[in-house]
Amino acid sequence: MQDSPSTVDNPEWLNVIRWTDDGLVPAIAQDAATGEILMMAWMNRESLQRTAEEGQAVYWSRSRQKLWRKGERSGHQQLIREIRLDCDEDVLLLKVEQKGGIACHTGRKSCFYRKLDNGEWLSTDPVLRDPDAIYGTERGDKTGE
Amino acid sequence: MQDSPSTVDNPEWLNVIRWTDDGLVPAIAQDAATGEILMMAWMNRESLQRTAEEGQAVYWSRSRQKLWRKGERSGHQQLIREIRLDCDEDVLLLKVEQKGGIACHTGRKSCFYRKLDNGEWLSTDPVLRDPDAIYGTERGDKTGE
Repeated sequence: MQDSPSTVDNPEWLNVIRWTDDGLVPAIAQDAATGEILMMAWMNRESLQRTAEEGQAVYWSRSRQKLWRKGERSGHQQLIREIRLDCDEDVLLLKVEQKGGIACHTGRKSCFYRKLDNGEWLSTDPVLRDPDAIYGTERGDKTGE
Repeated sequence: MQDSPSTVDNPEWLNVIRWTDDGLVPAIAQDAATGEILMMAWMNRESLQRTAEEGQAVYWSRSRQKLWRKGERSGHQQLIREIRLDCDEDVLLLKVEQKGGIACHTGRKSCFYRKLDNGEWLSTDPVLRDPDAIYGTERGDKTGE
């Protein structure tokens, strides 16, 4: 049985998700090979559908209110290996192959590079590449990638 | 130098976090040993402070609007090994030791037990223990643990 055009535009698996009032769902990106948590960002319906179709992570930038194709400026795309959903249907887990080995706009592998240590947030992870080299000196924030 | 009482009640590391308008921050729980993502839940200021002080995960239940000490009914506490913060200061990562090896109220290890597969959410992970055996037959939802 072929999908009707309306089913293609509005697939049932998207309706399972319990979107926020703003139409968003948080998505955790995890390195499929090492298990390291790379980042968390938000998706709307269109960005998730594109993510599934294109096989690379497309988020929704809340600050810029537009689709944000991860790596569009940095080249650090996230190739999708698996998309998972939690028991409450309100959080996604993406298992990805992180191109360039850098997910964070600070030039680190993971955005979670600070650890609580004796009441202080201590940076523990190295900068692998200077953000100026990744984005140029006029780069915006992460969501501007 | 001793902390003044006000610093103890209102530690500076909590002020670094960019709380939502509702005063919350999402917290991802990851198995410290295996790297598996167990769940994502929300914390308010008090729950995070208690988490750090008690060394076990204390979330904020949005549905019940009260502190939710993970495992208080199931016994499946999460012992804190590390608390991490992301580059935008708006997401936490908890590396935990999951007591009982079960984080999900469905009796599975992880809440992310469904995988997108040919346009369907396919359950891939086994139930390790019957939820009725964990919570009794009159259990409420996960947040009622």
